[in-house]
Amino acid sequence: MLASLSSSFRLLSRRTPRCRYFSNSFTTKIEAVTPETRRKRVILSGIQPTGVPHLGNYLGALVNWVDLQRNAAPEDELLFSIVGWHAMTLPQRPKDLMESRMDMLAILLAIGIDPKRSIVYHQNDVLTHAELAWILNCITPMGKLKRMTTWKSRLAASKNLTDDSDIDETSLNVGLFTYPVLMSADILVYRATHVPVGDDQTQHLELCRDLADQFNRTYKAKHRLFPLPIPLNTPSKRILSLRDPTSKMSKSSPDAASRILFTDSPSEIASKIRVAVTDSIPGITYDPINRPGTANLLTILSAYTGEDVHAAAKRFEGKNHGALKTEVTEVVQEMLRGPREEYGRLKGDKGYLVEVAKEGAEKAREKSEATMKEVRERIGLA
Amino acid sequence: MLASLSSSFRLLSRRTPRCRYFSNSFTTKIEAVTPETRRKRVILSGIQPTGVPHLGNYLGALVNWVDLQRNAAPEDELLFSIVGWHAMTLPQRPKDLMESRMDMLAILLAIGIDPKRSIVYHQNDVLTHAELAWILNCITPMGKLKRMTTWKSRLAASKNLTDDSDIDETSLNVGLFTYPVLMSADILVYRATHVPVGDDQTQHLELCRDLADQFNRTYKAKHRLFPLPIPLNTPSKRILSLRDPTSKMSKSSPDAASRILFTDSPSEIASKIRVAVTDSIPGITYDPINRPGTANLLTILSAYTGEDVHAAAKRFEGKNHGALKTEVTEVVQEMLRGPREEYGRLKGDKGYLVEVAKEGAEKAREKSEATMKEVRERIGLA
Repeated sequence: MLASLSSSFRLLSRRTPRCRYFSNSFTTKIEAVTPETRRKRVILSGIQPTGVPHLGNYLGALVNWVDLQRNAAPEDELLFSIVGWHAMTLPQRPKDLMESRMDMLAILLAIGIDPKRSIVYHQNDVLTHAELAWILNCITPMGKLKRMTTWKSRLAASKNLTDDSDIDETSLNVGLFTYPVLMSADILVYRATHVPVGDDQTQHLELCRDLADQFNRTYKAKHRLFPLPIPLNTPSKRILSLRDPTSKMSKSSPDAASRILFTDSPSEIASKIRVAVTDSIPGITYDPINRPGTANLLTILSAYTGEDVHAAAKRFEGKNHGALKTEVTEVVQEMLRGPREEYGRLKGDKGYLVEVAKEGAEKAREKSEATMKEVRERIGLA
Repeated sequence: MLASLSSSFRLLSRRTPRCRYFSNSFTTKIEAVTPETRRKRVILSGIQPTGVPHLGNYLGALVNWVDLQRNAAPEDELLFSIVGWHAMTLPQRPKDLMESRMDMLAILLAIGIDPKRSIVYHQNDVLTHAELAWILNCITPMGKLKRMTTWKSRLAASKNLTDDSDIDETSLNVGLFTYPVLMSADILVYRATHVPVGDDQTQHLELCRDLADQFNRTYKAKHRLFPLPIPLNTPSKRILSLRDPTSKMSKSSPDAASRILFTDSPSEIASKIRVAVTDSIPGITYDPINRPGTANLLTILSAYTGEDVHAAAKRFEGKNHGALKTEVTEVVQEMLRGPREEYGRLKGDKGYLVEVAKEGAEKAREKSEATMKEVRERIGLA
């Protein structure tokens, strides 16, 4: 019944998602590359190393990176970054952060990101990001950052406030406030052309495009230095908490059964799905408003099988939640089995991970250095 | 009558001044190093590359750097930085900035900064400054930066506003607002222990000490990572405009005769002092309130001779402004002759300047890297 792992990725790739950094969902279906459109693209995304990803992160962003890699034209470049400096905008335990960085790299490789094809690196190994962020700071009006809403909601979330208006702005740290400038630098330092973004990051990519344009106009030369990066986005489809399907699956929820982790064993997966909150309506239908828990399970299922959610629901006509949960359990176990095993293997090969990070950083540095050489000349600091 | 160049520096070194970066005056007389106090100091200062320095800058900061270098104990380290990233917080013409960077380096060498003794480098050649600035951003509350007054006055000055309250904060750029964080990074990345500061920079060094302390407490280990840098300051003595002695000598005044530039020829110096505004009171007395122009000339004179200003005035008892101006002209011509000639020679040896900048950057990078290695380990991004 279940598709093989490799095809599952292909099928999954038609679905949506969310990512923690450009936190969001994005287009996973890459348009066919015709000779007319065959211009080299530079596709870039990043993820924060803040703990083991859950199913929402996995289906939201990570699986799509693999899809982007697979569907890219041979001349396209891909960069996937573990953005540790962004993680610092909220308090982190250094030991956990250190571990998460290495874990996240292992996870990227385990799911199929190929370091021979894509540049995979730790943001903080490439100091040119911080250099360009400073330069962009000097052309960013404070007013633009004040209008961003993300720092408000992140600050509110970090203080467990339900209303943005309750937040105390004086306690806001400068890192969280200026984070969109660093994110712009992350993108522009490689002259990225395409960036997967979700709804909540659209405003940041808009800022990035503004800054690119502002720089190009302020520091004119024969050619435009920065392309204005194009968002790759799709209507967002979210994976919800198994315990409270009115909210997103989240790593910060106190109830561990609310999320399936990338590293969960088959029995952990089974027990979490067994206690997943659904509803007492007989039969299975896809009705995200009135039956969010049931709809969430169908979403997870169809993310794997590639079916339409309504078609998936139809297969359970006359059946009950038990049957649905059984299949979702099998699907999730199957979906995570291969990557989890590979992840376990890679975790035991620290030398390899260190080597991959080192090579990725070297490639990223070299590529960013080409941009910065020109930036420095244009601004008069060469 | 005039002291030789080398002794003039010694005498001058007992005087005060102003610098553009840590914009200010500082202690030039270094305390005698006794065995008890003989702990290695790391002394750091910076200057913005924004045009040829004038006499105010020269007597204010540059001459004192030479004095700091001369009086330092053998185990002390000295770092002098040309801070191009700070210059970017206000609009600059790239071509001018590029030229000013090289000019400023030539000037530092011309006045006697010895690249074998001190580390002389361009800030923007050492990317760890920007890296540490980002990390410090993440522990700096917005409220602290809002309370700084310097960005307000700089913004007001750049818009030719006389009142800080007229400034439009939304037009403030993020670079100007967060500049004290970068300045803190400039200092802490070398674990500097002593920083020359003037009145207007005291608040920035206070912020730097706060951030150092905050980092030390947040990321504890066996030893404190950052020393809290100590200000080296003296009561400020300012060189005033020759045309409007109620305001500071300034590079931005539209009247070129208001300032003597480091590069002015003897005849330019003579003609600027000839038309310097004084007063119509007969005789010469030191009275900065009622006779600011006259007092300013006595200040310049005594900066060179090392006399007390009142003693200098006494020498002109019964004489007129013409006699005072003649001696001030001779003094300034003599004071600038050697450095100007050396500057001219160095400007013709671009290869040497490039080499000095390269070596300085290498040393600075190496020293800052030792700090950053530990920073990265402590925060969990190693």
